[in-house]
Amino acid sequence: LAEFSARRVIERKRDGEELSPSDVLGFVRGYLSGAVAEEQMASLLMAGYFRGWSETEIEALTRAYVESGTVLSFSDALGEGRRTVDKHSTGGVGDAVSLVVVPWVAACGAVVVKLSGRALAHTGGTIDKLESIPGLRVDLSGSELAEVVRLVGCAIGAAGPELAPADKRIYALRDRCGSVPSLGLIAASVVSKKIAGGADAIVFDVKVGCGAFMRTLAEAAELARLMVRLTKRMGRAAMALITDMEEPLGLRIGTGLEVLEALEFLQSGGAVADPRFAACCRAVASAMLSLALEVSELEARERLEAALADGSALARFEALVRAQGGSWEQLLRFAPAAPVLEGASMRGGYVRRVDAVLLGELAREIVDRFGPLAGVAVCARVGDRVDVGTPLVRVHGAAADFASRAAAAEVFEIGDAPPPPRPVVYEVVR
Amino acid sequence: LAEFSARRVIERKRDGEELSPSDVLGFVRGYLSGAVAEEQMASLLMAGYFRGWSETEIEALTRAYVESGTVLSFSDALGEGRRTVDKHSTGGVGDAVSLVVVPWVAACGAVVVKLSGRALAHTGGTIDKLESIPGLRVDLSGSELAEVVRLVGCAIGAAGPELAPADKRIYALRDRCGSVPSLGLIAASVVSKKIAGGADAIVFDVKVGCGAFMRTLAEAAELARLMVRLTKRMGRAAMALITDMEEPLGLRIGTGLEVLEALEFLQSGGAVADPRFAACCRAVASAMLSLALEVSELEARERLEAALADGSALARFEALVRAQGGSWEQLLRFAPAAPVLEGASMRGGYVRRVDAVLLGELAREIVDRFGPLAGVAVCARVGDRVDVGTPLVRVHGAAADFASRAAAAEVFEIGDAPPPPRPVVYEVVR
Repeated sequence: LAEFSARRVIERKRDGEELSPSDVLGFVRGYLSGAVAEEQMASLLMAGYFRGWSETEIEALTRAYVESGTVLSFSDALGEGRRTVDKHSTGGVGDAVSLVVVPWVAACGAVVVKLSGRALAHTGGTIDKLESIPGLRVDLSGSELAEVVRLVGCAIGAAGPELAPADKRIYALRDRCGSVPSLGLIAASVVSKKIAGGADAIVFDVKVGCGAFMRTLAEAAELARLMVRLTKRMGRAAMALITDMEEPLGLRIGTGLEVLEALEFLQSGGAVADPRFAACCRAVASAMLSLALEVSELEARERLEAALADGSALARFEALVRAQGGSWEQLLRFAPAAPVLEGASMRGGYVRRVDAVLLGELAREIVDRFGPLAGVAVCARVGDRVDVGTPLVRVHGAAADFASRAAAAEVFEIGDAPPPPRPVVYEVVR
Repeated sequence: LAEFSARRVIERKRDGEELSPSDVLGFVRGYLSGAVAEEQMASLLMAGYFRGWSETEIEALTRAYVESGTVLSFSDALGEGRRTVDKHSTGGVGDAVSLVVVPWVAACGAVVVKLSGRALAHTGGTIDKLESIPGLRVDLSGSELAEVVRLVGCAIGAAGPELAPADKRIYALRDRCGSVPSLGLIAASVVSKKIAGGADAIVFDVKVGCGAFMRTLAEAAELARLMVRLTKRMGRAAMALITDMEEPLGLRIGTGLEVLEALEFLQSGGAVADPRFAACCRAVASAMLSLALEVSELEARERLEAALADGSALARFEALVRAQGGSWEQLLRFAPAAPVLEGASMRGGYVRRVDAVLLGELAREIVDRFGPLAGVAVCARVGDRVDVGTPLVRVHGAAADFASRAAAAEVFEIGDAPPPPRPVVYEVVR
């Protein structure tokens, strides 16, 4: 056997050759063991930035990421022939979809193990939201997760540093070395963590728009297709939805406020909900359920509506909160913090644009300073007709200046004509 | 002042922006101080491999290399208004040109300070050749070099690790990280060492052909033009010759054997010499002299022929050898080592190709094993008519099998028709 040469692998990538799976595995293993130096990995990643990565290379990288750490399995906690389903959002604002769909899909008979991350930049993180529920634990070990799954049929845990640690180390290197942008490496990062987390089926919610990391539909579609193909190559079931993030998805932005929005959705059987938020929850939930139970999406939708109407989705949410140590009673007393300050429109017209990034950043600042039940509530949606003085946002529990900052003209752009309508789901990738 | 961000510099290079001189200087200074990590330098170099380097960037890099170490100056050792001239060969086989031209050009009134390297791959190094002369020292300090220059008008020293150390460190990094090929970085490396060595004028002998690092005329011409322009941007005089390295330049390959070839050229007034070797020496020497004295190349040629004919070039060589501690008496007794073994042609025809790389590697092996007066003598040149049994090479002082290896069909390719003639000097770049 020829000796593994990191330099030769770099040169071949540089010269446009496709690396073999064993090249990629050898390189990553060498990096983790110290045989491949930081500067060699940095050089390979920059060569890959210019040459791009083939799907074979990305698959090998994903396998290398998975094998670099703990790989969870829930087969002992599951019945015969059942599989776990997980979902992943590429990150949005006012996006409490996970809190709704995990118990809802579980209430329909699927096993849902959701491994989540924390807030990143302007986007919210499911883990931060859940931690607003007093007593609730998210730092569950693999066996604790399995126990919650066995009891409740679903669980939401923090994706710990033991899952795919190679990805974290390589991401930090790319961040230092200016080679971050790469759809292939994003796909490898997302898919490897889900697979290390034991998912048998994965639904990807790829957000697109000014509030998302993917700014164009073409880019979002490329990432969606890549993640679905990659997941299937790894032997798991997958679907992706490309959904809108031109404005905040739900009406509430914060941590506890988003939990409250999810709770109200389940309590009201979907009646008290923003239509865009509800549509996204329905689309993600039906994709998850159809993958988990291998039923049609039509059948999945029917089962989901039944579980929403008969209260079993809400009951499953209660069971989940309790199983993870959270106080359901305190959650039921959740209310937006006082004072409530309104930010109103300075002119009449149509809402043409709502800057989700600015609102997301503002809500994060408010929560950090004023607590989990403080935050932002959006009162005007893109396309809405407003007059001078019409409320655009309400800011809960924060100092007075936040209301004017949230309602500023750079956040809410008002024009003379309404913009064209946008769908909630642009495309489903199977 | 904005804080220097290595990551931003890398990203800008990656995205095709030209870096400013202060970006480049800041990056290299940070690398040397430890503020810029190995992996960041590796990442920048790979981005530069794909984007290329502008002449402004290369000039800044050259300045960063020069300032990273000692900078020699011979102004105290020189008379009013005189400047030092150096030459650099990109590396060849049977290329003892430096040993001829340094004393020859000095004999015509120029001040020649030649800083040389060691053998690299299949090519010979002037330092290794000089060390075959008993007693001769090449590891001269700056002040020792200046003293030899003051006494003799010329000196040949080893380019020590204190000259442009940043280049050495970055070359080693590129070597580990697969980002070696770059004409711009080669130019920065060569020019920075010459300028750190105190050269006011530089002649570049860019070798092209199967025995050289530059394989095509286009590539050699690009490097030649780049080095000349870069040297002029650095405020020094420069010329480049693009010369042939499709076969060994001189007839002898080794260390002591090449010293002998240079000695015989000077002793015979140029009469006992291979015509190709002599032509290259004349071209390089006249370029050096015309730059050093700011005279026409025609006048330079006339002065050179006079110094060759009247023995002053030879006398200068003797003075140089003696001033650096070498034994002129022992050098005069140099003779190719015994036994002399002939490698003969196995077929009749015309010599179509002589593999300089294989002969260079073979000669190096022979010298390493059998001493400095062992080596290879080429008897047949490309284009020569040979019969079965015509000697192709003589191997001096080595075991018998080396003669057949040196005369093997992959070294000497014999065909039915002569190949087209090739010039010695393809182009002069001013």
